[in-house]
Amino acid sequence: MFEFSVSTESRARAGLLKTGHGEVATPAFMPVGSQGTVKSISPRELKELGAEIVLANGYHLYLRPGVETVRSLGGLHGFMGWDGPILTDSGGYQVMSLAANAKVEEAGVEFRSHLDGSLHFISPERAVEIQEGFMVDVAMCLDICTSYDHSRKAVEHAMEITVGWAKRSLAARKSAQTALFAIIQGGVFHDLRERCIERLGGLDFDGFALGSLSTGEPKETLYEVMGEALDKMPEHRPRYVMGVGTPEDLVESVGLGADMFDCVLPTRNGRTGQLFTSSGKINIKNSRHKDDERPVEEGCGCYTCTSFSRAYLRHLFIAGELLAYRLATLHNLYYYINLMARIREAAAKGSFDSFKKEFYRKRNPNEKE
Amino acid sequence: MFEFSVSTESRARAGLLKTGHGEVATPAFMPVGSQGTVKSISPRELKELGAEIVLANGYHLYLRPGVETVRSLGGLHGFMGWDGPILTDSGGYQVMSLAANAKVEEAGVEFRSHLDGSLHFISPERAVEIQEGFMVDVAMCLDICTSYDHSRKAVEHAMEITVGWAKRSLAARKSAQTALFAIIQGGVFHDLRERCIERLGGLDFDGFALGSLSTGEPKETLYEVMGEALDKMPEHRPRYVMGVGTPEDLVESVGLGADMFDCVLPTRNGRTGQLFTSSGKINIKNSRHKDDERPVEEGCGCYTCTSFSRAYLRHLFIAGELLAYRLATLHNLYYYINLMARIREAAAKGSFDSFKKEFYRKRNPNEKE
Repeated sequence: MFEFSVSTESRARAGLLKTGHGEVATPAFMPVGSQGTVKSISPRELKELGAEIVLANGYHLYLRPGVETVRSLGGLHGFMGWDGPILTDSGGYQVMSLAANAKVEEAGVEFRSHLDGSLHFISPERAVEIQEGFMVDVAMCLDICTSYDHSRKAVEHAMEITVGWAKRSLAARKSAQTALFAIIQGGVFHDLRERCIERLGGLDFDGFALGSLSTGEPKETLYEVMGEALDKMPEHRPRYVMGVGTPEDLVESVGLGADMFDCVLPTRNGRTGQLFTSSGKINIKNSRHKDDERPVEEGCGCYTCTSFSRAYLRHLFIAGELLAYRLATLHNLYYYINLMARIREAAAKGSFDSFKKEFYRKRNPNEKE
Repeated sequence: MFEFSVSTESRARAGLLKTGHGEVATPAFMPVGSQGTVKSISPRELKELGAEIVLANGYHLYLRPGVETVRSLGGLHGFMGWDGPILTDSGGYQVMSLAANAKVEEAGVEFRSHLDGSLHFISPERAVEIQEGFMVDVAMCLDICTSYDHSRKAVEHAMEITVGWAKRSLAARKSAQTALFAIIQGGVFHDLRERCIERLGGLDFDGFALGSLSTGEPKETLYEVMGEALDKMPEHRPRYVMGVGTPEDLVESVGLGADMFDCVLPTRNGRTGQLFTSSGKINIKNSRHKDDERPVEEGCGCYTCTSFSRAYLRHLFIAGELLAYRLATLHNLYYYINLMARIREAAAKGSFDSFKKEFYRKRNPNEKE
């Protein structure tokens, strides 16, 4: 089961995704749980935070613990103890960024595991099979990612292979319970993105994603490329902007018509003591928080802010205590999920523009550390 | 406020400790939160686990974040977000084991911080002042710890100084909200322990502890020394056996008349993947758990066992995921706290001997890894 309904009256869209594991109001932020766990956070906490869908990673889970282990333990839902919707990335990005000696051919990609050097070959068909084996709600097609410093020729080549792989992925589907999203490539080249959308947009994918964004391009370029592509992507299918981004990026992207997001920023930054607030980011390790009895953000309803002072959180970080990473991650995820809820509410009420103005008004450049 | 009532009908005692921050049923196990946090566990989880009192460490918190910071944030309760009773160790043990260049004199102990090499001097009076500054419910007298390999002469000297310091600690008390426990030293030498108890037992301490146990002595010696000492300690004051121990140690110690315990085993072992069960310890990282869908312990009511398989827990450990440490610690603390609850129930009902028989019957030597 996979259904998507969305209001297309304005560019900022409010919608609803229905999956076999529950509903997801969009625009939605997906916390990243690459290895079948959102780092330091329990499934119960994810529920309390209001997370409605999480992202896991096909590459990581395929290598360890392996498809058979996950499948035999009830699929990824049973394995990780999360009964809400799950989307997995196919692992194309990780093959390129983590694995060694990746060789891309028309047939698929050969690579060595970053864990033990073992040799693997994954075709687009196999990538679908792996993700269906995890029994997730949404699978992503295997794709080839590029970054801002790649030549047009390299980007075009990656896009062409990605298109061929997406078609093969569609033909390889066997499970009705796992939806399949295609990924639009083409770097910062409008015509390549457009060509990719033309070739895939009419096919029977359950959703479409934009890949290879936030890979070094300037912000204006990011928003321009995203805006042009989103405008051309199928209107009634979810549009997922992969790996994006900062709070500002989320606001801008929704303004351009995006529905789904994932990003490691709230979790990874949390673990280094970078905390998001409506006025900007703070570094909780800074000595100015040593005796600060205030919460990270006044008025924030998260467990961290309602229970602990900045001083205590700083103490945990300085002492290298494990609780530090969890409390910081909890706050950051709460910030992201609640930002998204407010964006969604504004989009649904048709007041996105005034929400956006208010969002930027509160940002205080002095808070940046 | 500090009151203790205890049934002294049998050697295994059931009692009740009343403090300004709530009641503690004894025998009680105190989870260790040296730096103002039980590693990886939130105060909310401690409550859910049934923990009624936690232990923190005077040495660690004195060095970082410092007495003034803790006091200004509402004392240790406010600082760490735990509103139940707290006992602090004075830090005597840490000065000897962690700090550099510790010099013990009649006046007190001089040492260099293990964090930054800074020079410090702590007298017994200062140790009381520090702990009263933390506003904890129970403070421990500054003492000198010895270990099993110390000579009788060294142990006797440490005991004599400890006695003098305990008397000075009593005279140094200023706050009615912080109870004070004396520590009995004397190593494995019955007559030295006895002399220490004779000199301190009649004084107005709120409780008495046995220090320097589990420092390398054989188990029979541990139980023998403990038993002889406990028999001589004041009957109507809580008897706290410091740093002890394994599940077997808890059962044996209660059988010998002990009321309070702290030990890093459930937390520290948890973080290395050693999990306690009623049949013995298991190492969750062992490959035999790779596809094991059972919980760590069948029938266990902890969050870990009711939510996750051994296979998932193993995966988290192998992948080095932060959630591993928390889930393992949760289970181990639950095991300890519930073991203590069952011990307590048996002691209260006068059925401790049959409880003990049943406890040992369930231990399966084959489960040891």
